[in-house]
Amino acid sequence: MKDYIKADEWKIIEEGFKPELNKISESLCSIGNGHQGQRANFEETYSGETLQGSYMAGVYYPDKTRVGWWKNGYPEYFAKVLNATNWIGIKIWIDGEELDLATSKVSQFSRILNMQEGFLERSFVAKLNSGKEIKVKSQRFVSAKRKEIGAIKYQITPLNFSGKLETELFLDGDIKNEDANYDEKFWEEVDKQATNEVLCLTLKTKKTGFYLTTATTFEVFQEDAALSLETHIISKEKYLSLKTQTELKQNEKTTIYKFASQVTSRDVENADLVSVAKSSLQTAFAEGFESLKKEQAETWAEKWKHADIVIEGDIKAQQGIRFNIFQLDQTYTGTDERLNIGPKGFTGEKYGGSTYWDTEAYCLAFYLATAEPKVAKNLLVYRYKHLQKAIENAQKLGFTNGAALFPMVTMNGEECHNEWEITFEEIHRNGAIARAVFDYVNYTQDKEYLADFGLELLIAIARFWAQRVHFSQPKQKYVMHGVTGPNEYENNINNNWYTNVLAAWCLDYTKETIDFVEKNYPQKYENLALKIDFKAEEIKKWLDISQNMYYPADEKLGIFLQQEGYLDKEQILVADLPQSERPINQKWSWDRILRSCFIKQADTLQGIYLFEDRYDIETIRKNFEFYEPRTVHESSLSPCVHSILASKLGMKEKAYQMYLRTSRLDLDDYNNDTEDGLHITSMAGTWMSVVQGFGGMRVRNGELYFTPYLPQQWKGFSFRIGFKNAWIQIKVSTELISLKNETTQEISLFIYQKNYTLKANQELKIDVKKIEDNIFA
Amino acid sequence: MKDYIKADEWKIIEEGFKPELNKISESLCSIGNGHQGQRANFEETYSGETLQGSYMAGVYYPDKTRVGWWKNGYPEYFAKVLNATNWIGIKIWIDGEELDLATSKVSQFSRILNMQEGFLERSFVAKLNSGKEIKVKSQRFVSAKRKEIGAIKYQITPLNFSGKLETELFLDGDIKNEDANYDEKFWEEVDKQATNEVLCLTLKTKKTGFYLTTATTFEVFQEDAALSLETHIISKEKYLSLKTQTELKQNEKTTIYKFASQVTSRDVENADLVSVAKSSLQTAFAEGFESLKKEQAETWAEKWKHADIVIEGDIKAQQGIRFNIFQLDQTYTGTDERLNIGPKGFTGEKYGGSTYWDTEAYCLAFYLATAEPKVAKNLLVYRYKHLQKAIENAQKLGFTNGAALFPMVTMNGEECHNEWEITFEEIHRNGAIARAVFDYVNYTQDKEYLADFGLELLIAIARFWAQRVHFSQPKQKYVMHGVTGPNEYENNINNNWYTNVLAAWCLDYTKETIDFVEKNYPQKYENLALKIDFKAEEIKKWLDISQNMYYPADEKLGIFLQQEGYLDKEQILVADLPQSERPINQKWSWDRILRSCFIKQADTLQGIYLFEDRYDIETIRKNFEFYEPRTVHESSLSPCVHSILASKLGMKEKAYQMYLRTSRLDLDDYNNDTEDGLHITSMAGTWMSVVQGFGGMRVRNGELYFTPYLPQQWKGFSFRIGFKNAWIQIKVSTELISLKNETTQEISLFIYQKNYTLKANQELKIDVKKIEDNIFA
Repeated sequence: MKDYIKADEWKIIEEGFKPELNKISESLCSIGNGHQGQRANFEETYSGETLQGSYMAGVYYPDKTRVGWWKNGYPEYFAKVLNATNWIGIKIWIDGEELDLATSKVSQFSRILNMQEGFLERSFVAKLNSGKEIKVKSQRFVSAKRKEIGAIKYQITPLNFSGKLETELFLDGDIKNEDANYDEKFWEEVDKQATNEVLCLTLKTKKTGFYLTTATTFEVFQEDAALSLETHIISKEKYLSLKTQTELKQNEKTTIYKFASQVTSRDVENADLVSVAKSSLQTAFAEGFESLKKEQAETWAEKWKHADIVIEGDIKAQQGIRFNIFQLDQTYTGTDERLNIGPKGFTGEKYGGSTYWDTEAYCLAFYLATAEPKVAKNLLVYRYKHLQKAIENAQKLGFTNGAALFPMVTMNGEECHNEWEITFEEIHRNGAIARAVFDYVNYTQDKEYLADFGLELLIAIARFWAQRVHFSQPKQKYVMHGVTGPNEYENNINNNWYTNVLAAWCLDYTKETIDFVEKNYPQKYENLALKIDFKAEEIKKWLDISQNMYYPADEKLGIFLQQEGYLDKEQILVADLPQSERPINQKWSWDRILRSCFIKQADTLQGIYLFEDRYDIETIRKNFEFYEPRTVHESSLSPCVHSILASKLGMKEKAYQMYLRTSRLDLDDYNNDTEDGLHITSMAGTWMSVVQGFGGMRVRNGELYFTPYLPQQWKGFSFRIGFKNAWIQIKVSTELISLKNETTQEISLFIYQKNYTLKANQELKIDVKKIEDNIFA
Repeated sequence: MKDYIKADEWKIIEEGFKPELNKISESLCSIGNGHQGQRANFEETYSGETLQGSYMAGVYYPDKTRVGWWKNGYPEYFAKVLNATNWIGIKIWIDGEELDLATSKVSQFSRILNMQEGFLERSFVAKLNSGKEIKVKSQRFVSAKRKEIGAIKYQITPLNFSGKLETELFLDGDIKNEDANYDEKFWEEVDKQATNEVLCLTLKTKKTGFYLTTATTFEVFQEDAALSLETHIISKEKYLSLKTQTELKQNEKTTIYKFASQVTSRDVENADLVSVAKSSLQTAFAEGFESLKKEQAETWAEKWKHADIVIEGDIKAQQGIRFNIFQLDQTYTGTDERLNIGPKGFTGEKYGGSTYWDTEAYCLAFYLATAEPKVAKNLLVYRYKHLQKAIENAQKLGFTNGAALFPMVTMNGEECHNEWEITFEEIHRNGAIARAVFDYVNYTQDKEYLADFGLELLIAIARFWAQRVHFSQPKQKYVMHGVTGPNEYENNINNNWYTNVLAAWCLDYTKETIDFVEKNYPQKYENLALKIDFKAEEIKKWLDISQNMYYPADEKLGIFLQQEGYLDKEQILVADLPQSERPINQKWSWDRILRSCFIKQADTLQGIYLFEDRYDIETIRKNFEFYEPRTVHESSLSPCVHSILASKLGMKEKAYQMYLRTSRLDLDDYNNDTEDGLHITSMAGTWMSVVQGFGGMRVRNGELYFTPYLPQQWKGFSFRIGFKNAWIQIKVSTELISLKNETTQEISLFIYQKNYTLKANQELKIDVKKIEDNIFA
């Protein structure tokens, strides 16, 4: 755990130059706009420790799978998130000496991510080996409004000399992935165009054939006067640059503006790439940096208007939640149904793929509540479009009759993970994808989605479960063998409670959805049944399974069992584990982890969270009190579920601790891996901890419920929810729960089980002392 | 399955040129002498499909481990069996046209492994593209008497022309392993010396620094006259050759003799390598090919005298058993305690490492009975010398107090396998190593071994088991979680019956051995206890475990359960599995294999085989009848155990089927993988099937028992056993069991529970009809 980021409500601030933490800061201050993004690498040359990374959404490379021991069914290729053309580069020479913070004496260094306005800022004073001192200030953003555009303002002031400044502004496509399995470079050059003002580099990926055109231009000012400089073009393999030189005067600012446009063949025909890149670049250039930056601030203000959560009296918590929301909204904007939420967003290349079960199990709720319904819908459509590949994936594993197994990790619908215990066994992902259909429809009441897309996907998933279980003669129940649950610290177990519960629910929900669609959209139903050769007899088997599923439990303890035989393990609590042995995934061998009772992330509790209305509060409490002390939270997805359940159980201190852990996971580098990139998807869990945990928000049968309470450490908090065309602000303070309908759409909701109706623009204040059975006390 | 090897009692015969089967034949006809060996590659250039392989015992390379997903505790390096200098090469040009069977018209081709005399022979007629026809006959062997020496006789006769013959006799060290993880070459050149008569090439391995010096010389005869030829030296990186030319006359034989000596730094100081190689080469050369070949035949005759098994009336069975014995004796001679029995011997590079649990569980019995006691003892000492590394290996996995976990695969004592489900979980290997101590002492009565080596190893293993189990509260028994049993088609299971039984036995046997050594070798005991900090209290815990171990069983079926919950699986029999889905390890995904009830190899039955005297015949029968129909035998180590138990149960037809499967596994390419090399270690299982199965041989408390019977398909069979300084021949025919003491040492033994004493050179004939309760009927 680290604690070097300065607390601030709206900014991520690194003060002082800390080369040993540079890769962490590069991750934390990453910028992105859903289309492109990059780590907070320096513009100028840096020979110290750095992970260079610039990424384009949806552009991937199928790197040949690397494995020690091949198993049938492994994918041949692993879709890697690609490091793409570096457009930020500005090399600087002062009287022939290159600026490089690794070899200079650096002072007054700061790197700041301004989340309110959506830009990255850096400033420092560097004393070169010659003794010359310069002050540098840079600002950079990728435009939230114009997805192709990025812009940099780079200011240099000589402090103790006058002399010659040389600059080289470049586009470098000769980059590689650190995680390339065979040290291969993934890009090939297609085209290069250079004038003295504009550079334009077109590359394409091997195998996948994605084209990327990057165009850049620049202008230089001294104080407020634009300079007209001679430029010299340098052209190398996959590399273009413009070299210039000018005179610096002591204490006078020289400002370089660099603009870039990045256009890919995902959006534009290959033949038009160069012209589109150049024209969008030209428009942005004409607009100018300051104007673009103002537009950026306005665009982010609009995003914050809906998504912001305000926390009063706890600046670290405030910083944490905004950081999470900011990164989520940088990663996914919901405008392109071919995209999804990569686990590292635009902040690193690790893990590859863009889509995990995280999307459905954690992220969907955030986008449902804070964005237009189409954003969440696009996440669902994304999976629907992969249905055929999921059916093929299941076929590879021996399933028939149109059964689908969605991949554990994917970019294009094909599986690209290859640990058998995960790829083949962590099948609960199928359930999360079905559950997302339910969540979306429950939230939006867009029931036509079921007829158009949802049911087809549900049937394919139901067919999978029906084949994946078998009937146990000794138990006289349906059992599911050889699975890995959400808790990946157990492999190849039998009857994971979570997976069994979810599978049975899928079967029931599919049956219910069939009834609904058959009745309300008979023609669509008939067409679908024909298309997928569906026969009503299948349902009988499904119901037999769901009614006779085996659920391991211990009656004496009054708990569900994470898996069959869990109590046979040696029962030790995390509290009794020496700190020196944690995290166990770094200190213990795998077999020891598997044998232990320690839980990586919420598993049984994840199931209780999903289906909480089935269980009385005592059952939930017993399970929480049993499993939580055995959970090491070595997955970023774990603390949020615990926080929400702790809130429900009135365990406020535990809920708050778990909240802090999820919200500052990356900021404080809890798991010692922030340098690889951020944990984007788990950030949605932080949002859930506040809104579903402290806010107690639930949607039941299309109705909105809240049971808010204020954590002791806070003076107040507020958030907004978009629901059925209304936007409601919920504010919680020590005395009041305020609800404000910010739209003209009347809205009904429940606070602590009591129904209220908020008329257009109405504000309602509820005295917390008057709420019976609340958990404020 | 293939069936192209011609049946013959003493030879492996390939007739007709079959390029598509070449790699299989290269494996089958491999030659070796325990020190070096090679695949039956052609001497001349061959541009068709081939796996080139020449190997030196104990010379390995630690190839950097390749893995998809790293787990703590994985070894950094994997010890690879190294392809070494190719000394057999003789390039042939006829009037400038190179001989290459892939581009010639080949007739009258045969490749024969002469097992009786220990050499490889090949002959063919090749019609070159020019239309010129030559007849070639080559013979080759590596000397069983002089471990450094190999020799070739290569005869060429022009059939339809006279013309120019050019030859290039080479040493090629610029070779690589096909299984190199990073396409790296493992050898570096150290020294090259060339005269017009002798070439001498010294290489060393990277990292491990093994030196290998290969010296070669030659002579050429036409008809019976030695030629004095001009030679031209060619020297390249890691390559030396001598080029010569001469005139061929139609229908006149030209004979090239090539001799090589291979010496490694394992046996000789680096400084002496060249001189030792040259002098042993010189001696062999002076002896001459025909004389060396005669010596080879004599040496093999001596080996066969003890090891041969004669089968009458079933030529395929006869060929099979001799092939197995021959390959075992080619692989391991027991003269070097640093060596072990590689799973592919000198026949391929696959699997790496040299030592698996196969050695103790399958091979030891063969060497105990057919070789001097020191041969088997060396196999035990080998493990003893690795004890410290096994303790370190266990420490890496979190064990303390001198507990040892021997590696799954090793060359130098370090683990070099890296699938967690095998490396970390397939811990029954520890039990096999302890059991080998028991078997050796039981057979040889060399009880001092226990005091000198055995006990220290047993205590380290007992300490491992004591930590590896834990007490289950629900079961009130000791349980062992997270293991993989011999049946590798189950991973991460709880309470594998075999492993639990073996672990408890280890604890008891260690206790018993402590008592024995303490009483009989008190000083040695005291020294040992001091050395390993052993306290008698440890024993109490061990006995508590062994007395309260959990053994899964099903009372109704009267069987032991392979693991907890086995009956919960869907119960299908192999007979009901479509042939198109077999072998399941090639047709099914891993999760499906794991979920199925199908068994890769004997598991529960392996335990019953080990401890058969504990169980009544009905229990054994019930388990056999339950498990055998569920076993797919996709490990080469499976059929032999089934064959032995079937013999015990009087299931003669089953025993014979299983015998055939193990004995001709490679000859008939059952598993479609002979081309990678032979399954050397499982060949010992074939021997066991005959001697322990059909012969019913057992050693109980140092006494020898037989319950022989004759398979219906045979007219008779006989084998020899070395026991307590006597050699006994056992002959079984339709009417008689004949026992012959071939030594002057009196020997006592039991036939069908009846005790007989055989005086010096005595022969005893027992009429099978007079044996009560025999299974001849």
